Amino acid sequence: MLVIQRLEYDAFGEPPKVLKIKEHHLAALQNDEVLVKILAAPINPSDMLTIQGLYGTKPSLPANGGSEGVGEVIGVGGDVKKVRKGDWVVPLTGPTWSTHLVAKEGDLLPIPKMDVRSAATFKVNPPTAYRLLHDYVHLTPADVIIQNAANSAVGQAVIQIARARGVKTINVVRPRPDLDQLKAELQAMGADYVVTEEELTDLLKSVAAPKLALDCVGGKSTIALTDALAPNGTMVTYGSASKQPVEVSTLALVFRNITLHGFWLTRWFKEPANRGKIGPMYGELSQMILEGKLKAPEMDVIPFRDFDKAFTQALKMKGGAKQLLLFEEACVLKM
Amino acid sequence: MLVIQRLEYDAFGEPPKVLKIKEHHLAALQNDEVLVKILAAPINPSDMLTIQGLYGTKPSLPANGGSEGVGEVIGVGGDVKKVRKGDWVVPLTGPTWSTHLVAKEGDLLPIPKMDVRSAATFKVNPPTAYRLLHDYVHLTPADVIIQNAANSAVGQAVIQIARARGVKTINVVRPRPDLDQLKAELQAMGADYVVTEEELTDLLKSVAAPKLALDCVGGKSTIALTDALAPNGTMVTYGSASKQPVEVSTLALVFRNITLHGFWLTRWFKEPANRGKIGPMYGELSQMILEGKLKAPEMDVIPFRDFDKAFTQALKMKGGAKQLLLFEEACVLKM
Repeated sequence: MLVIQRLEYDAFGEPPKVLKIKEHHLAALQNDEVLVKILAAPINPSDMLTIQGLYGTKPSLPANGGSEGVGEVIGVGGDVKKVRKGDWVVPLTGPTWSTHLVAKEGDLLPIPKMDVRSAATFKVNPPTAYRLLHDYVHLTPADVIIQNAANSAVGQAVIQIARARGVKTINVVRPRPDLDQLKAELQAMGADYVVTEEELTDLLKSVAAPKLALDCVGGKSTIALTDALAPNGTMVTYGSASKQPVEVSTLALVFRNITLHGFWLTRWFKEPANRGKIGPMYGELSQMILEGKLKAPEMDVIPFRDFDKAFTQALKMKGGAKQLLLFEEACVLKM
Repeated sequence: MLVIQRLEYDAFGEPPKVLKIKEHHLAALQNDEVLVKILAAPINPSDMLTIQGLYGTKPSLPANGGSEGVGEVIGVGGDVKKVRKGDWVVPLTGPTWSTHLVAKEGDLLPIPKMDVRSAATFKVNPPTAYRLLHDYVHLTPADVIIQNAANSAVGQAVIQIARARGVKTINVVRPRPDLDQLKAELQAMGADYVVTEEELTDLLKSVAAPKLALDCVGGKSTIALTDALAPNGTMVTYGSASKQPVEVSTLALVFRNITLHGFWLTRWFKEPANRGKIGPMYGELSQMILEGKLKAPEMDVIPFRDFDKAFTQALKMKGGAKQLLLFEEACVLKM
């Protein structure tokens, strides 16, 4: 019988305090089930907020953490057809902070073998960037978009996917001591323009006004973004780094016909109309990764047994490198 | 030759200071022209903002004021077919703060004879309310909408048009000494609920969440409106009484899928796709007025010769009765 370890919490609070490793005995696989050995799973900001009780949805307690990751199929039930032992899969539902998980094959996304960091962070951020660039404004080559939090994981994916389509990006970042280095890094990734909010006004004198603004910050930053938009432009908010409300001038809304939307990948996945779009989207994104056109952001790779350290670090970081839990040898096989 | 008088300004500034009466000699009518004697013309907030140089569009100077009104046809060119002497018409373009105006028949909307206050304020506010209720969310009887500035001219038209369609309205007004009287007046007009922002939370416990929010205020008021909206709801901003940016929580945008739009009637009229909708809309609104289902808001009727007084009053009033300029005997016939 397989004993697995996974991270659980029975109260909302600071993740390093409330998360504990629990052991479970796994029952024998049902015919329609797949046993997946998790290889790596990231700690996302939304995971942290969920555990803190601050996210849009609250799980019932006790709960398991981890919303994405990558694993290898190590067992299949008799009726399973689409995945085989040895395949790499991305679980579409968690919990992934676990040495193993059991899932129906329909809840597993088979992916080609690739860099484990890209694979483990494949489910959430690249599709978020993909949908933000596809679902709101029809963009053609030489069109311009603008985004804040350009150095975030989604921001970096936006830069690379836009570049692959010939769409130009204006990337707003916060002032910082190593600003020139950050600019160079994002430009190497494909960013056309990297500016602070202060530098934005000058830039807009010489660049076509953007049709689409992507906002992960809120507050005053959204005034800057919506003021930059072309008439009839659209801003889509998908996060709230500032924890401030989104703001937009009435002039922009009324006289320039700016529209504001919010995007939430969880809702997108739940829409029945989107079922058929999931496969082609991930196919296209896999291809980009294999061709080196879409790289994962920098991350700290930390063994699962040191999860305490990883979560303490995740709590401290604001916009820095993501923590990736690595599950080598963490599972224990018993009788 | 007809000498007409009209209000002109050659600098942006406070309307009572910069507006002057100027006389002009009218040339003989061209074959496709119509001569209209203005009967009455209102002073709208957007007129005041335009003269102050604070509106979305700035006219070139010197400029004439007045964006709506009602007049009687007193002369027609030889090729004019759709209007006749004695008809009442609403000029689709200004300037209406003028004893007379000359227009092509295509720029005149013939209307049935009705209360002069309704006729003079027919062009802007009722269609704004009409479009706000028609163009963003499909509303069916028993659906609920919410609006702020419910006592404004547009707000009152929203109440009456919604009532005629069986749509319920939650009307947010500011606290004031005569609050109970205002509530009674708006309820007599057809408002289902009239509340201050403070009373809104309690009301929402017992009323279905609104699908549509109409905002003429901005600032914190838009937080209250968007928080009240049902999931997938829409807020449309059409004015900015607070002169503060529109604010919306990221939770509302991202997790409840709220969408924000701006509405500007001037843009709506300019859209070629809307040409065919203008006649049927005004037909429906005329019918409502004649049936007593849509009444004009209270207004102060002031003779044109006392325009100074009217504009001084308009500058002082915030949300009070509108000023209506009446043009009896103000035109001078010479030789």
